[in-house]
Amino acid sequence: MRLSQYFMPILRDDPKEAEIVSHKLMLRCGMIRQEAAGSYSWLPLGYRVLRKIEQIVREEQNRAGALEVLMPTIQPADLWRKSGRYDAYGKEMLRIKDRHDRDMLYGPTNEEMITDIFAQGVQSYKDLPRNLYHIQWKFRDEVRPRFGVMRGREFLMKDAYSFDLTREAGQHSYNKMFVSYLKTFARMGLKAVPMRAETGPIGGKDSHEFLILADTGESEVFLDRAFHDMDWSTFEIDYDNVEAVAKVVDEFTSKYAATSEMHDQADYETRVPADRRVTGRGIEVGHIFFFGTKYSEPLGAVVQGPDGKMVPVQSGSYGIGVSRLVGGIIEASHDAAGIIWPEPVAPFRVGLINLKVGDAETDAACEKLYAALEAKGVDVLYDDRDERAGAKFGTMDLIGLPWQVIIGPRGLKDGIAEVKNRRTGERENVALDQLLARFAK
Amino acid sequence: MRLSQYFMPILRDDPKEAEIVSHKLMLRCGMIRQEAAGSYSWLPLGYRVLRKIEQIVREEQNRAGALEVLMPTIQPADLWRKSGRYDAYGKEMLRIKDRHDRDMLYGPTNEEMITDIFAQGVQSYKDLPRNLYHIQWKFRDEVRPRFGVMRGREFLMKDAYSFDLTREAGQHSYNKMFVSYLKTFARMGLKAVPMRAETGPIGGKDSHEFLILADTGESEVFLDRAFHDMDWSTFEIDYDNVEAVAKVVDEFTSKYAATSEMHDQADYETRVPADRRVTGRGIEVGHIFFFGTKYSEPLGAVVQGPDGKMVPVQSGSYGIGVSRLVGGIIEASHDAAGIIWPEPVAPFRVGLINLKVGDAETDAACEKLYAALEAKGVDVLYDDRDERAGAKFGTMDLIGLPWQVIIGPRGLKDGIAEVKNRRTGERENVALDQLLARFAK
Repeated sequence: MRLSQYFMPILRDDPKEAEIVSHKLMLRCGMIRQEAAGSYSWLPLGYRVLRKIEQIVREEQNRAGALEVLMPTIQPADLWRKSGRYDAYGKEMLRIKDRHDRDMLYGPTNEEMITDIFAQGVQSYKDLPRNLYHIQWKFRDEVRPRFGVMRGREFLMKDAYSFDLTREAGQHSYNKMFVSYLKTFARMGLKAVPMRAETGPIGGKDSHEFLILADTGESEVFLDRAFHDMDWSTFEIDYDNVEAVAKVVDEFTSKYAATSEMHDQADYETRVPADRRVTGRGIEVGHIFFFGTKYSEPLGAVVQGPDGKMVPVQSGSYGIGVSRLVGGIIEASHDAAGIIWPEPVAPFRVGLINLKVGDAETDAACEKLYAALEAKGVDVLYDDRDERAGAKFGTMDLIGLPWQVIIGPRGLKDGIAEVKNRRTGERENVALDQLLARFAK
Repeated sequence: MRLSQYFMPILRDDPKEAEIVSHKLMLRCGMIRQEAAGSYSWLPLGYRVLRKIEQIVREEQNRAGALEVLMPTIQPADLWRKSGRYDAYGKEMLRIKDRHDRDMLYGPTNEEMITDIFAQGVQSYKDLPRNLYHIQWKFRDEVRPRFGVMRGREFLMKDAYSFDLTREAGQHSYNKMFVSYLKTFARMGLKAVPMRAETGPIGGKDSHEFLILADTGESEVFLDRAFHDMDWSTFEIDYDNVEAVAKVVDEFTSKYAATSEMHDQADYETRVPADRRVTGRGIEVGHIFFFGTKYSEPLGAVVQGPDGKMVPVQSGSYGIGVSRLVGGIIEASHDAAGIIWPEPVAPFRVGLINLKVGDAETDAACEKLYAALEAKGVDVLYDDRDERAGAKFGTMDLIGLPWQVIIGPRGLKDGIAEVKNRRTGERENVALDQLLARFAK
């Protein structure tokens, strides 16, 4: 993409309304624009990141055997009356009347609807297990939305729902999602620590939150330093191997980690030696629940078991805050100059800077590299604007692409370009004819 | 995908509520499920088609130089008050009050918001032209939603918006979208005839609808038979070549084609010889508008021109009914046995039928082919259920995958499988070791 033809309205100054760094940086980079309290348009740069995160989430859900569907944003109120949540949900639920005066609502979550879909489509235990998910916009009418996309009202969430015949089978479905979450966040370059959580308004028996560790996190967390020493890279797993999956869950739940809500100081001190006790802050990016028959019973989601008897199915739900992750990753990965994108979610992998637009040789070298990178499928943002070098450097640092390739008349005399690693700040001279091989996979 | 692990709730009988064939077939195949009047969940099979159509639309928008953004579904009413459409829009607009009693609405279209985004981000003619689009769910509260996804209330639309300095430049932007629409629909295997249209509530000066010809179409159309003889395959074009783009538009607008709303019998008889006059029915799948300064003036979308003066920008908007296309394609492509998907939008390219589940040799041959096709990236649905052959054939014909590969004990003795072309019904015996090469690209 040529920056001269892009739409990336950079702000010179920090926007006053932004309280946290991700919100500031997203507004300054022209990634998002506020449309109403807690509601944002995703401009081209921000939208690219959102889509990359969404795609990683999708691929890992599919790998774990979940099937993608899409439920509408607007739901009829009737289903929520059946589960008893229509009145219980409070003012966070955006309630709507259509032109025929029917009660509707903008879905804040989808347990009721998916359970009903499942119940209509499946009659026998032979069709179990099933896990259905969608990636859809939700609306929760928070009293005081803030922190940009970190606590918006309209936000993009992946929510999956598992259906099993027995408690044991349901546990395996829960464990599969647990493991797929570790893999999902690892692919984004994140350490997301699973912590036992309260089940809150979803209800249920078992629940874990996944929190990214970041100094600016919303929650105080207490954990064993051993978490820092674990291997957080992604890994292969056979999801059909019940024991192998359970083993990974054990490994990540046997060490102490808790948010302040669930923290138990006595237990902490018993289990974690003083020199391994770490307190910090975390941002919730995923939340999984096992709730058994809480929704299948009122909504009549029953299947015929092997003995011919009808039994309500065992269910869980599994959420990832897709739009929230964009902010969360920035909170965990930035410096004073701007964002530092992990490569898998970067809007572009390479930022190409032309130091002297109008200079025939520099233009030619940049155009040649730009065309070659595009042809190889490398995401590249080419700053071909007639601006001074300092402004170009500042913009590239601000938007945080992993690699900068800087081409100007001085280097060209020696046949070289400068390559800068945004994360480490390291600069290296690379021969022009080596650049393509360096970035093409 | 193994059918035994899929979620595709087939209905045995035609659903009574469905009046048209696409609605019937989508419900019968388990592609969608109705959640409220005019509101559907997309089940796995239907969702795959929706995503394939969406991706073709996206690729062709990008190719024509449009930049993808995403605006929220819920909009503040204020912007619509500025353009004067808040009161004008009527009951089709879903109006909402949030918990702080602020007037909000579920976006039926986005001229106001995008014009405001543009105005805040662009100040100079040097940053023109720009075309911003998004693919987002819309809500229009129709009095009587019907025909399934063909006239839903919540529907997925691609809407693009162009911004130019002059009327002439705006015409080129309009022409680029016109040409990209021809290419988009051609890639889906559709003949979508452009017809001059009324501008309706969007307003403006110039407008074309794109209609698929289908016997079950909602509109009566009158056209020159010459349209049938044109080349409807996709083609290469240099979008920067103003004349080449205009030439394609001329070619597709010089012949007579009109819906009954715009039909002029005298003009028709003058321009089209009697033996070339064709009447038929069509389904609108795209609509483009050029409206000049209709929104830029009230919303203050002005740029500084080359002479230093501020001028309101010239705009157009360009819609494609993404979810409607799923139904439209079925209306245009089905037979008595079910759907016939054009390959580029088929949910799976190949349906693999195991005629004797449990027979060791048949199972092994099917598993081997299934694994090989998956490894090559071929979308394959493997019917590994323990059902009788007749039911499997019926299901495959109903869901309309382009190719069926049928493997059973009898053919295996001779080392062959049967390959059936769903569209032509042709059957062919193919040696087992030739199957992979046949379907892998």
